[in-house]
This record gives sequence, structure tokens and C-alpha cells, in this order.
Amino acid sequence: MAVLTPRATDFPRWYQDVLAKAELAENGPVRGTQVIRPYGYALWERMQAEVDARIKAAGAQNAYFPLFIPESYLRREAEHVEGFSPELAVVTIGGGKELEEPVVVRPTSETVIGEYLAKWTQSYRDLPLLLNQWANVVRWELRPRLFLRSSEFLWQEGHTAHADEADAAAYARRIAQEVYRDFLTNVLAIPVLVGVKTRRERFAGATNTMTCEGMMGDGKALQMATSHELGQNFARAFDIDYLGADGARHLAWTTSWGCSTRMVGGLIMAHGDDGGLRVPPRLAPTQVIVLPVRDDEAVVAAARELVSSLTDAGLRVRLDARPGLSFGRRVTDAEIKGMPVRVEVGPRDLAAGTVTVVRRDTSVKTPVPLAEVATRVSAALDEVQAGLYAEAVALREQRTADVTTIADAAAAAATGFARIPWSAVGEEGEARLAEDALTVRCLQTADGEIPAPGTPADELVALIARSY
Amino acid sequence: MAVLTPRATDFPRWYQDVLAKAELAENGPVRGTQVIRPYGYALWERMQAEVDARIKAAGAQNAYFPLFIPESYLRREAEHVEGFSPELAVVTIGGGKELEEPVVVRPTSETVIGEYLAKWTQSYRDLPLLLNQWANVVRWELRPRLFLRSSEFLWQEGHTAHADEADAAAYARRIAQEVYRDFLTNVLAIPVLVGVKTRRERFAGATNTMTCEGMMGDGKALQMATSHELGQNFARAFDIDYLGADGARHLAWTTSWGCSTRMVGGLIMAHGDDGGLRVPPRLAPTQVIVLPVRDDEAVVAAARELVSSLTDAGLRVRLDARPGLSFGRRVTDAEIKGMPVRVEVGPRDLAAGTVTVVRRDTSVKTPVPLAEVATRVSAALDEVQAGLYAEAVALREQRTADVTTIADAAAAAATGFARIPWSAVGEEGEARLAEDALTVRCLQTADGEIPAPGTPADELVALIARSY
Ligand SMILES: [Zn+2]
Ligand SMILES: [Zn+2]
Repeated sequence: MAVLTPRATDFPRWYQDVLAKAELAENGPVRGTQVIRPYGYALWERMQAEVDARIKAAGAQNAYFPLFIPESYLRREAEHVEGFSPELAVVTIGGGKELEEPVVVRPTSETVIGEYLAKWTQSYRDLPLLLNQWANVVRWELRPRLFLRSSEFLWQEGHTAHADEADAAAYARRIAQEVYRDFLTNVLAIPVLVGVKTRRERFAGATNTMTCEGMMGDGKALQMATSHELGQNFARAFDIDYLGADGARHLAWTTSWGCSTRMVGGLIMAHGDDGGLRVPPRLAPTQVIVLPVRDDEAVVAAARELVSSLTDAGLRVRLDARPGLSFGRRVTDAEIKGMPVRVEVGPRDLAAGTVTVVRRDTSVKTPVPLAEVATRVSAALDEVQAGLYAEAVALREQRTADVTTIADAAAAAATGFARIPWSAVGEEGEARLAEDALTVRCLQTADGEIPAPGTPADELVALIARSY
Repeated sequence: MAVLTPRATDFPRWYQDVLAKAELAENGPVRGTQVIRPYGYALWERMQAEVDARIKAAGAQNAYFPLFIPESYLRREAEHVEGFSPELAVVTIGGGKELEEPVVVRPTSETVIGEYLAKWTQSYRDLPLLLNQWANVVRWELRPRLFLRSSEFLWQEGHTAHADEADAAAYARRIAQEVYRDFLTNVLAIPVLVGVKTRRERFAGATNTMTCEGMMGDGKALQMATSHELGQNFARAFDIDYLGADGARHLAWTTSWGCSTRMVGGLIMAHGDDGGLRVPPRLAPTQVIVLPVRDDEAVVAAARELVSSLTDAGLRVRLDARPGLSFGRRVTDAEIKGMPVRVEVGPRDLAAGTVTVVRRDTSVKTPVPLAEVATRVSAALDEVQAGLYAEAVALREQRTADVTTIADAAAAAATGFARIPWSAVGEEGEARLAEDALTVRCLQTADGEIPAPGTPADELVALIARSY
């Protein structure tokens, strides 16, 4: 396993090594852009499918809005321009000619979707209007890092309009919990903390931002998804109003929410070990990899048969019988790619009517009678899913300190998360922490829930950490 | 049904009406761009899922390459620049500064994928390397038309590298037949003609272009998907070579192939009638729409129950019980949107233990006992699928003339397709036809198959038509 830099030696370098050796991604030719390789993209496709199913279950519909946005749209909401203009890519030449009005490559589709929400929102009967889009967006990035910060990334952005504040708030919360938290904990096996952002960390223009924060292997936080209530700010800027049942016009209340290819970075950093990636079985594009121990006709035939019986059992299975590669190389490849369960098929085992089942998370090897393989592999997959989650919870608990002073919070956040009463921090304390690159990742209730609107400050707990 | 311009009156206007009334798409704010509305996008998502499954079955893997391409890449292949430069969108400002080298928004990912194919192709063991990408591309369009020609569109582009010519040729053909033809005929229910392009119509840089040509409701042809053999031209330009088993370096042979949101336009124009869209059941996001005849509690409850029993039977079903809309309005909406089967639930029917099943393609209404609904609706869906295909075949046959002279071909192509021996046309005849905006859509063998390489010219049949 000497192919990767150990995490303890140099975590960022280990991350780069995993990206390269697991064939996940590499730099694109234009600075800050990325090429997502087939295995990295397969992980993203599985994330997309799982998140998309949850978004649809929450009643939102997918649509597609243009890549190009008139520059004037971005000026419509002052806070937007400020936030985005240093990050914009601007097209000035189109069809061989200088354009009269330059167009911006979307850094988000918020403004263009706002325009159409306004058009499609006429009567209270049109509400709620629940839209989602899967797309690429561009934010010029000077210090790029594959999957975590890149000039172009893939994401999903939801934009909804509601008749009243309570409906908008409930929907934004539903998305944070039923889409993001559910996916991140139950599929990605990352025990995210869900809470609200402080005013300082809130999305520009939002009245409330909910966030899912995961702890990475180095104790830093990664913001994995956010859901915003935008109040009527956005509706006012884009004139999203409707004719109420009362015959009068009312401004709508809007929300927006998103998650991105950044989650692939989170997956790597939350579960990876010194042997490479470890993919939770519910996410894994390949849950089971079957490896013939040697290039022997009978062994390969038995492996092939195993692949089809496991596939018939509803599992995602692949055979790796590449003739040019030694068994050891194929094992290392499966480990680096983090395939949850490996089944090794050898002539001696076969003679004894067994195969060897190996869990990626614990490296435990178990001989299993051929007749029981499907059941035992399924059970092993459940164990790996639960095992990765339990490990992530244990890491987070071990690296989270309950403190009461800002000095102790700063000390604890050097290696993990600090939990501290928000009343002991406040906006001044937050500003002081920021000087050491420490941020309040979120505010929660004492029992770790999303605080209801108007929860008194002295009932809030702040989570403080370094972050990506 | 007076909501749409009749097709016979003005086909292009009927097309625009369907786009608007079926809520499929509208113009984006930047000229030539499009907003794909939820129903239009749901059609595309279903197309994507079906095409993607076939691409994966053909062994290709999805990946993602950057939106931005250095200008210099496009210059690497001379034929590329010529073909694309008048259509390019160029980013000259990034991150608030003028860029040193402008970047092009991809009109296709061919060049950037070529660069990485070269990098990843080292040994014969790396081949075939079979990649596909789902992405947006931009080609500045002065005469835009929603779904058919737009400055930005969504597509799939496959790019593969092979060790020898025969393998590349076989793969390009496999994609044309097993991915595109299979999807277009068996799911979209469009009886496409599959053949090869003439030298004049071939993709720039290709040695052979295979195409799937569908006949639209106005008798014009639409090119719905293409698959190209690129010989070694592209490999030479991008240095895609490999170390052979013989220890020497060899240039690879490459292919590329694609289909796009243009297929949504094809779906509309191939199957639509004066009542709107007609979606083949295997594609339809909603196969069955259940309509309570009136806003009565018992009726709506019965409709709801029906929706769940049909869903349990594995069908894609939706309830339309919108209280603000009359039954007539909801019927018209379902018709315009082309939902294949409609189930009407009324109090009188319910009392008799029946509901009314209506086929969208024939408008035939059948009373069906409640206990038999699932079986009868499933059967009706199969009938609509077959019916739409049969209608499209009948239209094509009725509007295709076998001719032997160019003059007759031109006359026949005014309203449909002309089939004519290629030896009676030739490159000179082709040039003459082009003056009347008539093109050879493809060359086939006498029995309608893709000609094998080297088929003598006098065994080829040309299909001549006007086209989109
Ligand atoms: Zn308005
Ligand atoms: Zn090379």
C-alpha cells in the first residue's frame, strides 16, 4: 500500500494521490477546470440519481435554463454582483463578432430562473412552483482544487416560489432534511451536522441558510449542501408576484438550495484511508468486485458465474480478470478505488467449494461456501455501510470538544470541531475567530437539531471548525 | 381543439404552438438560447435514460470534460476551425481580468477529449477506450429554432479509440444500430432510415458517417443521430498512439457519435397531430393520466385509488384533479401534452363499476370494468406504441417515391422522400439538387441496410429530401 502518501504525513497530498491513483479526476487544460474521469463520474452519477429521486419525492420538477445570462440580469440584485463579479467568465465574442451586450457564463442560474419564475407565477394556483436544475456553473477560481474548488463544477440548484413565508420555510427545511441529510447520512454514510448559518456566514440575500456540515479525515469541516430561505428579497428584485385568492397581488416567498461535485471530494476525505478511497455500498457504482486469483480458464469461468449470480441477486458487480495485470495489482486497484466488498476466486478455494470474501473497510477475509455467497456478500455490504458510518461518527465524537470559552474553542478547532454556547461567542467572537481562519459552521439546538425561527440566542450551540 | 394552428395550414407555426401550449420550451434571454420547461425536460430525461442504458450496454463509460477549451486546441485540426469558428462563443474576461489566451466555450468536446484520449492511450491493453459525455455545447445560431437549432443545446457525445480499423468501424456501426436505431424505432417509435452520408454531407474529418433519418409530419427529413468513423485523421492530429503487442508504436483509429435535444423536436414533428403532441408510451414520463370528471370527493378518491393501483402495476401514472380547472380544460391539457392513455373517472361510470379509457392516438373511448383497468390500460399502451409506429411507417411509405431521374427526385422531394439509384445522381447531381435545398440524406443498400465499406456505387440507393 505504499502507493499513496499516508494521510498523517500530508493530508492534502494524500488527497491528490487518491484522485490520481483511483483515476477520479485530473486538471483540465484551462486553469481551474477539471476532467472527471469515468470512475469519478460514476460516483457522481450515483450521487445524482439518489439526490434526484429525493428531490422528485419532495415534489420539485427538473428543468433546464441557459448557460448564458445577460450581464444586466446580475446587476438586478445588488448583493449578487458584489458576490460574483470577481468570479465571472464573460463572453464578449459570439458568432465571430463582438457582442453588443456581453453575456456572463452562469455562476448560478438564480437570476435567469428568477425571471421565469416571475413569468410563470401568475395566480396563487401556480404556487408553490418547485423547480430544480442539474447543470454546470462557472466561478473563476485562482486556487483550484479538484472537486473542492474548481472554475467549472457540476451541481443541482433548486429554486422555488411559495405563497407565504411558512410554506417557503417548511419547504427549505424539508429539502435540508429529507433530501440532503437523508442522502448524506443514509447513502454517503457521512454523519453531517445540520443547522443554520450565522448572519456572517449566510448566503448573500438569504434570510436563513441551513447547512449540512461533514467532518473530514483531517478534522476539518466541509459544507456539503445548503438550503436557503430568501424571504421576499429575491421576489422583489425579480418581480415574482401573484394574484391571491383575495384578488390582490402579493409578492411570493422564495427558496434556493444546492449540492455539487464537491460531495465527491467530501466522500474521499470523509471515508478514505491510507489504502485509498472507501465507498459506502449504497453509493458504490461497483459494490462487489470479483477477482480470479490467476489467469486460469476454470477459475475465470467460476468467477464469471459468480458475477452473474451476484448480479441476479440485485447487486452491482464487476469482474476484474484483466490478463495483463497480476492478482496483487488488481487487488490494490480495487482497494484504491474503494470497492466495498471483494470476492477472490482461487483454484484451491474452488476445490474446497469456497471463495474468499474481503471487506474493504476492515480488510477482514472470510472463506464462504459457494452456495452462500450471495447472502453473505449482501450481509457484508450492509456491514460495510454501517461500519463506515460508525467510524465517521466515532471520528467526529473523538474530535469534537465541548468548550465554554473562545480560547478553548480555537484550541479544539485546531484538530476538529468545538461545540460552544453561541452566547459565549456572538458576532464579535465570531469575527475574532475568523482571524485564525476559524468559522462558525452552524448553529444548532442543544440536541443537535435545526433551530426553529426565533429560537433565543442562549439556546443555540455553535460548531466551530477549520473548513474547506 | 382550436387552440393550435392546424398542421396543414402552417406546420412551423403549429410547431411553435405545440411548444408553447404543451409547455415544452421557450426562448432564453440571450438570443438563440432556450429554456426547457419541466415537461420538455422530462421528455429529454427519459430519452437520456434510454440512450444512456444502451450506451452502457455497448461498453462505453461516461466522463466529464471541461466547458472551456483553449483556442489553440481548435486550431490543431484544420477542418475543425473552418467548420466551427463562425459559431464560437469566446470568453475573453475571467475573474475580472482580460485573459492572456481567450477560451472557447465548447462547440463539441472533440478536441479536449482527443487530448486526454492521447494521454490515457499508452498500450494496446488500454484499447478500446470507450468514452461518452452528456453535456451542454454552444454554437452561435443566427436563425434559432427551439430544440432544432439553438445556440446552446444538450447532447451526448461519444469518443472512442481502437487498435485497428475493423474494430473502430464495427463499433461505430454498433452504436448506430444498437444505440440509436434501436432507441429511435423501439422507444421513440420513429421508423428511421439508417445509412451512410455522401462525401459532401459527411462530418468534417470523418471517413464514414452513419446517420438515422426520420420523416417529419411535413415530409421533411430530420437527422436524429450520427455515428462517425474518423479513420486515423483525428488520432494523427491529437497524437493518439499506442505501444502495440509487437513493441512498435501505432496510431489509433477513432470514432465519434452523438444525439441531442434535437430529438425532442423530432418527437414533436414526427408524431404530433392537430391536437398537440403524441408521446409514445415507452418514452412517456406520464403514460397514464387519470382525470376525475368532477371535483367530487368520492370521485377524486376513486381516481386516487386508481392511480395507486396502476402505479403498483409498474406504470408511470399521474392524477390531474386540479380544482381550478374544468374537466374539459384538463382533457385538452392531457391531449396537447400527448399523454398516451387517459382514464376518465365519473360518478355515473363508478356507479356502474367502470371507468373510461381513452387512447390519445385514435381518440377511441372504451368503458372498462374497474377490476380490469390495469390489464386493459397496459394493453392500450402497447397498442398506442405500435399504432404510432405504424402511422409513421405509413406516412413515410405514402410520401416516399421510387424514381430514376433527378427531375423526378426533385419533384418527389417537394413533399417527401425520393428513393433513387445513387448511380443516377452522383456528386454532380447532388450539387444540382443542393441548389433547390434538396440533399441526399443517406445512401443505403437496396434492402435498406447500412452499406458495407466498399459497396459498389451502382448497388447504392440514395434518399433525397428537404430537411431540418
Ligand atoms: Zn409578476
Ligand atoms: Zn501518444
